[in-house]
Parts: sequence; structure tokens; C-alpha cells
Amino acid sequence: MNFKEIVMSRYATKKFNGEKIPQDKVDELIELIRYSASSFNMQTWKLKIISDPKMLADLKPVSFNQEQITTCSHLLVFCADSDLMGSINRIKQMMLDSGAKEEDIKAYIDMMTSYVSSLDENGKNSYARDQVFIALGNALNGAKALGFDSCPMGGFDPMKYKEMLNLSDNLMPAVICPIGYAADEPRPKMRFDNIVL
Amino acid sequence: MNFKEIVMSRYATKKFNGEKIPQDKVDELIELIRYSASSFNMQTWKLKIISDPKMLADLKPVSFNQEQITTCSHLLVFCADSDLMGSINRIKQMMLDSGAKEEDIKAYIDMMTSYVSSLDENGKNSYARDQVFIALGNALNGAKALGFDSCPMGGFDPMKYKEMLNLSDNLMPAVICPIGYAADEPRPKMRFDNIVL
Repeated sequence: MNFKEIVMSRYATKKFNGEKIPQDKVDELIELIRYSASSFNMQTWKLKIISDPKMLADLKPVSFNQEQITTCSHLLVFCADSDLMGSINRIKQMMLDSGAKEEDIKAYIDMMTSYVSSLDENGKNSYARDQVFIALGNALNGAKALGFDSCPMGGFDPMKYKEMLNLSDNLMPAVICPIGYAADEPRPKMRFDNIVL
Repeated sequence: MNFKEIVMSRYATKKFNGEKIPQDKVDELIELIRYSASSFNMQTWKLKIISDPKMLADLKPVSFNQEQITTCSHLLVFCADSDLMGSINRIKQMMLDSGAKEEDIKAYIDMMTSYVSSLDENGKNSYARDQVFIALGNALNGAKALGFDSCPMGGFDPMKYKEMLNLSDNLMPAVICPIGYAADEPRPKMRFDNIVL
């Protein structure tokens, strides 16, 4: 499928058929997500991937009882990682490992550090969250490209998820995305006629 | 190109060659953006597209003087539209026009209205902004699929942009994305080894 076909055929699947996606396909999807774009290459996303039926059943009540949660193959929980200094340190190490010039590393790290230092806690969370939604887009298009379906979902209790998944303080679930094989049919897409001002 | 090739070859272009993208290709990109996923299909994005060299030159100083702004073909300014009740009313009209059942329309509109009513101003802005970053992802991948390049940029002054572009109160520039033909070369991609918790 070309990209236009992917965009036009992807849809928010309301019910999956329960069939498991082969692990190698899930791994390919993770790679597509991992290579998403992000501001300063900060990659402020972490994924919790859940396929255990018991855990999915436990999460359903804190997800407005939506049946995508228990009919999907895997549930991707996209977490925003607000430990931006942690990201910066990891990027520095990658640049060192790649043999980048010391002055280039310093300039880049200084620029990022200066930006991050200007943010308060809300600013850090919002910044981390922005990038997560770029990665979510790669998951939605990537699933369709790999031959399965997905459903981006904001309807869940982030604090309950954080607690039940034992997420560390720097991680906040921003959006969830069950993936699997659709057991429903897409409805015709409706979009506003004009998005250009 | 398949989706993996798009994801792996897209990169944040630091300098464009100034060549103009044909209008039909720009229109195709807008369609890919227009058909992005969004929560409740709320489509909380609006695009200001700038190709006038004088306007681009004026925006450069409020964009950290980054040369993508004046070397690109078109600058896409992604605005988050926090007029969520406006979105709901447009969706209601589309559902009516499509001949949807009255009770289905009512249930959907009531659900959206109830959600939106629960949000304060910050919540509305954040919600609108989330969806914009999904649409940005379609722009980045879409540009590569259509044979040109892009650069997602957070480094600009949103309030100055809002003022200079005469944006209405409900619109806030969230991210900008120059598009054009690259005059630089991509560097090897660096990503964290593991994003799965």
C-alpha cells in the first residue's frame, strides 16, 4: 500500500476478533514507532505493551468498558516521559558512541539543556506529550501498513493505568492504542471540507 | 515507497533548495493531513500555509533565524483549534448531511459535549494540541511519500506568529513545518535502543 492508501484505509476499529498478531509483526511496529520524529530527537515516549488477557480484563473497567481493550491482540500504552534530562544524557552518550565531534556534542547538548531548563513541570509534561502523539501516528499508519488494525483511545483513566502498570514518576500514560484484526467494518470517513485558513 | 521506507528516509531537513513544490502536490499533502486520525474525529487542526518570500522573511526572526524558514517552498503553520464546541457543531452537521440516524447523532454529540464540558481552558488547549501532533506526523510522512522533504519545528514564538498571521482567539500555533526539497543530506538516525517498558 502506498501512504495515501494507508491513510485512507486506516480507521478507529471498535471491535477486534481476538486473533493474535505474530510477534515479528509487533516487533516491526515497535521499530516504526521507535523511529518517529521528535523535537530535538528527544524521543519522549515509552511503551507498555499488554497482551495478557487477565491484565486486559482488569484494565477494561478503567477504560470506560470499551471492548477494544479485551478483543485486541495487544494493547499499546503510550507513556510521555518527562525525564527530559534523562533523554539528554542518553542522546549525549549516543553522540559520543557515534564519534561525533566534541564541540558539536557540547553545542547540541547545551542548546537542549538550555531549552529544558526554561520549562516548568507543566511545560515538561506538555513537551513530552506532544512527541507521543507523533509516535502514535506512526503506530496507526504502521499497523495498517503491516496488515492489521488499531484504535487510538483517549478514553481511559491515566492515573489508574499509572498505578496498575507500576509506572515510574516520570511516566504518564498519554494515549492508548489497541492493535489487532478488525471484527467490524469501517464507516465512510467524515472530514471538515477545509482545514486551510 | 512502503511505509517503513518512508519512516526510515524521512528526516528533519535543515536547509531546502528554494525550489517550489507544484501546487497539486501541496494539495495532495493537505489531503493526507486532513484525513489524519483525531479523538472523537474532532479534527482540532487548522493550517496556515505561507509561501510568500516577504512573509517568510518576516517570520524568520521570530523562528530563531533558522534558515529552513526562508529556503523552504511552503511553511505549514499547524494551529490547535480550541473551539471544541465549533468542532462538535460541524460534526453534527456532517452527520445530518450523511443521513445518520437521529438517535445515533444525539448519542454521539451528547458524549462529545459531555467530555468537552468537563475540560477547563487548559484542558481544551491540551486536547486540541494532542490531535495536531498526529496530523503533523501525516505531514512528515506524507511529504516524503510525495517526493519532498520537511522539518518539524518547535523553535518559534507562537504568540508572535499568532499576531503576525492574524489568527483568531481559538487558534494557537502549536508546531510549524517547512516543506520543500532538501539541500542537505540526512545524518544517520540515532534512536534509543529500547522504548518498551
